[in-house]
Amino acid sequence: MILTVTLNTALDVTYRVPALRPHTSHRVTDVRERPGGKGLNVARVLAALGHEVTVTGFVGGATGRVVQERLTGTAGVSDALLPVTGATRRTIAVVDARTGDTTQLNEPGPVITPAEWSAFQEAYEGLLAGADAVALCGSLPPGVPVGAYAVLVRTARAAGVPVLLDTSGEALRRGVAARPDIIKPNADELAELTGSHEPLRATQDARRRGARSVVASLGADGLTAATPEGRWRATPPARVSGNPTGAGDSASAGLLSGLVERLPWPDRLARAVALSAATVLSPTAGEFERQAYEQLLNRITVTGEATAA
Amino acid sequence: MILTVTLNTALDVTYRVPALRPHTSHRVTDVRERPGGKGLNVARVLAALGHEVTVTGFVGGATGRVVQERLTGTAGVSDALLPVTGATRRTIAVVDARTGDTTQLNEPGPVITPAEWSAFQEAYEGLLAGADAVALCGSLPPGVPVGAYAVLVRTARAAGVPVLLDTSGEALRRGVAARPDIIKPNADELAELTGSHEPLRATQDARRRGARSVVASLGADGLTAATPEGRWRATPPARVSGNPTGAGDSASAGLLSGLVERLPWPDRLARAVALSAATVLSPTAGEFERQAYEQLLNRITVTGEATAA
Ligand SMILES: Nc1ncnc2c1ncn2[C@@H]1O[C@H](COP(=O)(O)OP(=O)(O)O)[C@@H](O)[C@H]1O
Ligand SMILES: Nc1ncnc2c1ncn2[C@@H]1O[C@H](COP(=O)(O)OP(=O)(O)O)[C@@H](O)[C@H]1O
Ligand SMILES: [Mg+2]
Ligand SMILES: [Mg+2]
Repeated sequence: MILTVTLNTALDVTYRVPALRPHTSHRVTDVRERPGGKGLNVARVLAALGHEVTVTGFVGGATGRVVQERLTGTAGVSDALLPVTGATRRTIAVVDARTGDTTQLNEPGPVITPAEWSAFQEAYEGLLAGADAVALCGSLPPGVPVGAYAVLVRTARAAGVPVLLDTSGEALRRGVAARPDIIKPNADELAELTGSHEPLRATQDARRRGARSVVASLGADGLTAATPEGRWRATPPARVSGNPTGAGDSASAGLLSGLVERLPWPDRLARAVALSAATVLSPTAGEFERQAYEQLLNRITVTGEATAA
Repeated sequence: MILTVTLNTALDVTYRVPALRPHTSHRVTDVRERPGGKGLNVARVLAALGHEVTVTGFVGGATGRVVQERLTGTAGVSDALLPVTGATRRTIAVVDARTGDTTQLNEPGPVITPAEWSAFQEAYEGLLAGADAVALCGSLPPGVPVGAYAVLVRTARAAGVPVLLDTSGEALRRGVAARPDIIKPNADELAELTGSHEPLRATQDARRRGARSVVASLGADGLTAATPEGRWRATPPARVSGNPTGAGDSASAGLLSGLVERLPWPDRLARAVALSAATVLSPTAGEFERQAYEQLLNRITVTGEATAA
């Protein structure tokens, strides 16, 4: 089983409006809702690849009930979310039908009490016992200490479970110091962590900070990986255009999937790049086009070399 | 008991953002939620004035549950909302903290089935039996026929219950033809109904279309009333600045309150103007400042004359 952690789950709402004009009133012509938060996205992609996945994190309120109802209908995903008093946040994506541009409104999330955070750590330790790998994904809700991911990384390492961390800012900085097996920052997150916009230098720096392997995602340029086993670049055959929401989460799912199947790094990276490009191609945020994925898989260029043994 | 009908109930959500910039991502710094839809606003104000109120209309989904939970906590308001399969809509008001301006996003509401609409009409007839007055407020959700208010006005008249109608567009046009006791359009709604921007001419025209009394609200200029008993203007002592959301609903509540207490028109109008100005003064949408209301009540100018008997 692969465990994904989403401390700040969300109900992702997408609104279509004819044209967004600030300070006026709009009739929303189309409303879509789906469970969100990076760890839930990763879980959905892993389940679609045939993995058994368990999701945990916090869930609460009326929005939380909707998230859980929807998860129950997702084959391959087991729900181990912890109920809390606060309400799961909404994220609202307002799509301007004229231009296709999106304006995003993100609620902060419920305030987690110290007791809820303690209860989570205990539940998490129990879930790790049955996990082949764990992904720690996304932002921290209010109330959770900024060093939370460092704590969760250490618990996973103590349990001998490989851990992937995908977050940003101070939560990432603290988490990295606890020595996760893999981090998957995008270009901005990596630059913020290391102060360098030069991928080679930045990935080295992130490894020095504690990450065993750094897989940086570079948008249409694919992935660059710095690992104890070697350095690689993996690139899609071409830039694709579409909806990039969730592309990074699909990349994380590809890396985890390859990890538990014990694939060599080049194959893991090819899977991650093909999956994430197929996610951009899918009009629905966070879903991938299976046919495109399978076709892309043989067309990913992986260059680089293994470290001399 | 006063009955208020809100066919398109809502969960009104207010977001505060530091500054709204289209096509970017925003952290919402403050989230507020409250039951919405004009009839629910009218009911809250009536209850605050000490009236017994029953609310009906449609409610459904996770948002509907939140609306009902909140109503249960509102003293003086009885919940007779009819559960439906679709989900109660959200309205999102995005307040730009820099300018104070609001950008509004309104979901369309649940699709009401013919069976649900029939069930409502039956329940409504039952509720009228115990009602001293009824208010029909707001937009129609998808699926409800555009002539819905005409049907509901006729049923109220047949039951001998005075009926106030506050809606807009084609729903108002059709409703007026069924001869409601009072309509309370704002300046735009009245102009759209009659084609005239001249209040005197427009209120006369609206009466010819079927409304027994027309009380038009003119923003900071207060109210103008054309009734079988006479014509009046009621104006607040001064323009107040604040949050005008729900001012019209408070005006409707004032009119209904005065109606069931059998006050003469000038007193009803003074109450409506004082209440609605005190609603603008309240920072919370749809609530009024009680002290301001009581102080304003003696300072409303009412001019006009009763029709010669
Ligand atoms: N336009 C694109 N064309 C092809 N692949 C893309 C495109 N945008 C993103 N991807 C794929 O998605 C991955 C993650 O995207 P990226 O934007 O770097 O991450 P995040 O979604 O976390 O910000 C990239 O590494 C790449 O494989
Ligand atoms: N700026 C204001 N100052 C004082 N009273 C106001 C102000 N704006 C609205 N009101 C009161 O609220 C009533 C309803 O407001 P209006 O904007 O006409 O209706 P609606 O809210 O239905 O659009 C007015 O008739 C008036 O009594
Ligand atoms: Mg990402
Ligand atoms: Mg109004």
